[in-house]
Amino acid sequence: MTGTGEVRFIGEVESVDDTSTIHIYDEFCPGLLRVGEYSHLIVLYWIHLRDNKRHRGVLQVTPHRHKGAPLTGVFACRSPSRPNPLGMTVVELLGVDDCRLKVGGLDALEGSPIVDIKPYLPRGDSFPDARTPEWTDSGPPS
Amino acid sequence: MTGTGEVRFIGEVESVDDTSTIHIYDEFCPGLLRVGEYSHLIVLYWIHLRDNKRHRGVLQVTPHRHKGAPLTGVFACRSPSRPNPLGMTVVELLGVDDCRLKVGGLDALEGSPIVDIKPYLPRGDSFPDARTPEWTDSGPPS
Repeated sequence: MTGTGEVRFIGEVESVDDTSTIHIYDEFCPGLLRVGEYSHLIVLYWIHLRDNKRHRGVLQVTPHRHKGAPLTGVFACRSPSRPNPLGMTVVELLGVDDCRLKVGGLDALEGSPIVDIKPYLPRGDSFPDARTPEWTDSGPPS
Repeated sequence: MTGTGEVRFIGEVESVDDTSTIHIYDEFCPGLLRVGEYSHLIVLYWIHLRDNKRHRGVLQVTPHRHKGAPLTGVFACRSPSRPNPLGMTVVELLGVDDCRLKVGGLDALEGSPIVDIKPYLPRGDSFPDARTPEWTDSGPPS
């Protein structure tokens, strides 16, 4: 059995820099109530430039940003080419300005649609001692 | 500007218990290559029972599983009712058996479609000192 679901874009990445800006569309902006009480957020975004048949058909890659990485399944690395072009980054929340979030550490591109924002809860989300293969120690953090 | 995207379900939650089983469909199974080298995975699943107009229209809730929680935007809590019914759980990987993952700590229901599996990389995913409002200290970890 397989199937599909529809995601609605709730906002977009307006600018990317040391401090990046995420704009949440007016229609969804009430969902930000009290978001300023967290120091970190989980950002789920749409890797729009890879939303095509070719990139969504990729199941194995050699992660080129990491020295010595072997051929790896896309579910065992953070490849932007994958069956569903969903990216996930944990960001530091630097400020909330009405329907805009100022964040640090966003690994997305300008114009990337936003799919969801979730608060980062260390009780369930933080596993500092998680084991990973050695090649993940070099290159970008994801 | 708004828009939509299509997610394809890559598998489903086969059973939920202390040890839960995730089945990845044959078509996507090559994407699991080397997944066994990680101790923890990020599971993105579809909250299928909330995939309807009513639940997807919810923007603010009072999280009832947490004592003393105030009215909160859905982007400031882990409410299953939200514009996109995407759930995220970090699980412990207990075993890989061909196209099936045995995991601990999965906060999903039997039959939930799987949207993505990502390796958990503490360098970018673990923030043990992240700040959260006090009401998140009680109740379930997410």
